[in-house]
Amino acid sequence: MPLIKSWVTSANSATSPFPLNNLPYGVFTAADGEAHCGVAIGDQILDLTMLEEDGVIAVGELPVFDVPFWNEFMEEGPAAWAALRARLSELLAQGGDDTLSGDADLRARALVPQKGAELHLPLLVAEYTDFYAGRHHATNVGTMFRGAENALPPNWLHIPIGYNGRASSVVVSGTDVRRPWGQLKSPDHDLPAFLPCRRFDLELEMGAIVGTASDGPITVAEADENIFGYVLLNDWSARDIQAWEYQPLGPFQAKSTATTISPWIVTKAALEPFRCDTPPREFELLDHLKDVGPMLYDIGLSVTLAPEGKAPTTIAETNYREMYYSAAQQLAHHTSAGTPMNVGDLLGSGTISGAEKHQRGSLLELSWGGKEPLTLDTGDMRTFLEDGDTLALHGAAKGDGYTIGFGPCTGRILPALKDPYAR
Amino acid sequence: MPLIKSWVTSANSATSPFPLNNLPYGVFTAADGEAHCGVAIGDQILDLTMLEEDGVIAVGELPVFDVPFWNEFMEEGPAAWAALRARLSELLAQGGDDTLSGDADLRARALVPQKGAELHLPLLVAEYTDFYAGRHHATNVGTMFRGAENALPPNWLHIPIGYNGRASSVVVSGTDVRRPWGQLKSPDHDLPAFLPCRRFDLELEMGAIVGTASDGPITVAEADENIFGYVLLNDWSARDIQAWEYQPLGPFQAKSTATTISPWIVTKAALEPFRCDTPPREFELLDHLKDVGPMLYDIGLSVTLAPEGKAPTTIAETNYREMYYSAAQQLAHHTSAGTPMNVGDLLGSGTISGAEKHQRGSLLELSWGGKEPLTLDTGDMRTFLEDGDTLALHGAAKGDGYTIGFGPCTGRILPALKDPYAR
Repeated sequence: MPLIKSWVTSANSATSPFPLNNLPYGVFTAADGEAHCGVAIGDQILDLTMLEEDGVIAVGELPVFDVPFWNEFMEEGPAAWAALRARLSELLAQGGDDTLSGDADLRARALVPQKGAELHLPLLVAEYTDFYAGRHHATNVGTMFRGAENALPPNWLHIPIGYNGRASSVVVSGTDVRRPWGQLKSPDHDLPAFLPCRRFDLELEMGAIVGTASDGPITVAEADENIFGYVLLNDWSARDIQAWEYQPLGPFQAKSTATTISPWIVTKAALEPFRCDTPPREFELLDHLKDVGPMLYDIGLSVTLAPEGKAPTTIAETNYREMYYSAAQQLAHHTSAGTPMNVGDLLGSGTISGAEKHQRGSLLELSWGGKEPLTLDTGDMRTFLEDGDTLALHGAAKGDGYTIGFGPCTGRILPALKDPYAR
Repeated sequence: MPLIKSWVTSANSATSPFPLNNLPYGVFTAADGEAHCGVAIGDQILDLTMLEEDGVIAVGELPVFDVPFWNEFMEEGPAAWAALRARLSELLAQGGDDTLSGDADLRARALVPQKGAELHLPLLVAEYTDFYAGRHHATNVGTMFRGAENALPPNWLHIPIGYNGRASSVVVSGTDVRRPWGQLKSPDHDLPAFLPCRRFDLELEMGAIVGTASDGPITVAEADENIFGYVLLNDWSARDIQAWEYQPLGPFQAKSTATTISPWIVTKAALEPFRCDTPPREFELLDHLKDVGPMLYDIGLSVTLAPEGKAPTTIAETNYREMYYSAAQQLAHHTSAGTPMNVGDLLGSGTISGAEKHQRGSLLELSWGGKEPLTLDTGDMRTFLEDGDTLALHGAAKGDGYTIGFGPCTGRILPALKDPYAR
């Protein structure tokens, strides 16, 4: 599929992240100071809350964009998802429906420049689950912690293992992240201490958003149907808190400071041309987890790190197709014991690393547990994140003359509080 | 404090779980077929939604009982909690305010017999966290899995370790629980299989309900302030799924089929006379987790198991004071890395076992991993739960001539689906 041209001309370049082929959904502060639902097109945001009020678009009998999140729209189901995408394509296409393009006043009210717009979380996150489904990442981490022979846990090639995360700590790109305190134990001390985290890290992930609820086990095909779209996701991780706490119940406070997602939900429809296969299976998956077609997406991913006041350095480049399990397989597994899933559930893919050193999606792997510091383009050295660092994830699927982008997923590290209990 | 007498005379017996000293909060189906908020008194439920509509009670400017959950009331804060309790005590006390006792018509409309009333989840569960803070339980499980020498993980005596659970699977007492399917691997097989769970278990726990939101680390004293009340909690556990999946990320599908809570939230105010100390500390806790007074409660707990169509047998008797960490300490730890807590967050205590064999709060411990079957009073033998079994948790704090009860926390085991993917 080639680039589809829009009368919003900034959407027509091969490098714009938001051509008409994309139409990703977000929430922004509108001219009236209220948070509205919108869709990104070129360098503009189209205000859907306003267009719904004006009757230019209608999803159902009742409004769905009178709330500052996409959950009510998702509740309407896949037919409504397809219908809105078709309507927006029509309204924004070059030579399409001229309701908007032919009405200068409406156009002026409905289009807001992205530059300077304040973006919010695009959804109410119902619950958040994080998986561990990147084989290179799991192998790297396992090698560091348990040695190369025992790198992958015995279950790893049979189930997309994961853990429940904390939805209340999910924040939108651009939110500062404060270095946490936590209970740590140095190998050279007998007892733990409560201290600011010393090994604060990123995890480069994709997040899948559940758009249709389910109650009981669902198949991989049903799971794929139920996914509404994808975001970039940074699962900030306190490695020293994790090392002390994680046995036997898994990560808890190490992963609860913040999880940052990109502001635009890129729909499954926009990503359809980029579907690709999961890697060859070492063991045949059990029937209920088997692939039912190309289940991953070819999405180029990268991470940049900018020390305070300095230029960013690209520290990792990888691709979402490196995953061993797709989001649909993760969601199917998630429901296998009968747990209900809700609209707005967010599933983190797990850290996405490639086979090569520069393809690793965490500083834990890039610095090999802190033993091999990275040198940035600025000359600064890094093992883990330092105060003032700005970290950004970038994602782009490259089509025929166009790009499907996600918008950045950034966060700046604030220093730990001097005393977290000072009041 | 002695029994406080009510004109609802069924509340005045020493064995009623719901004397005026208790006043626990729930949600029930009212005469109009709608779910209303109510308070249990003796063998009746007082309809607070109706009384608020009639202006007999008022919490704030706007109604808080026009929704079928207690979250909006909790949002009003501790002063409102105390004021409602005082108002209800006044309205229900023998010789108190006669607005209700003196108005036969109002009384008849406001009081609904508990017998036959349908009860619902008393709150919208925001997120659910489960801890592992019972020392006897952790020692028993650790001994079975890792041997007596390594029973307690190294972190256990320093932090109340826990994991995030799945809020969407929390159900109210009386809800049937279907035996799950899951990926299992027998020790005598090389590869896992997808099968119905064979080792389905209960976990006897208390649940603490967060009534005040926080954003950032809070002290143990603040955490105690923020807790609204307590329920009984059964964290149904699929031991065979757990054994295969739980390394290294902790329990996931093993704990996601259902978590049952008792229908009445017993407030912190009602439990105040039963506060007691945590046990002596082997290691001094770090400052931010230290006890700030008597932090546990003396609440007698028991578990009964009834095979289908047969009488129940008491299989365990223990007490909430057996915990090593209090709910306030768990909540303080939960916030230590900065995670926001919300009204309606539910914290499971972890399984509550005593030192003696009959005080163990799970079948895993009672049957020592299935090796020592229990004989029920009916003559039936049990290692784990069988289809048709009804399991019930019971809790009671014994005061001077009165009892603070929770109502039962029950669930009946339905057989696994023949094919979870048949449509």
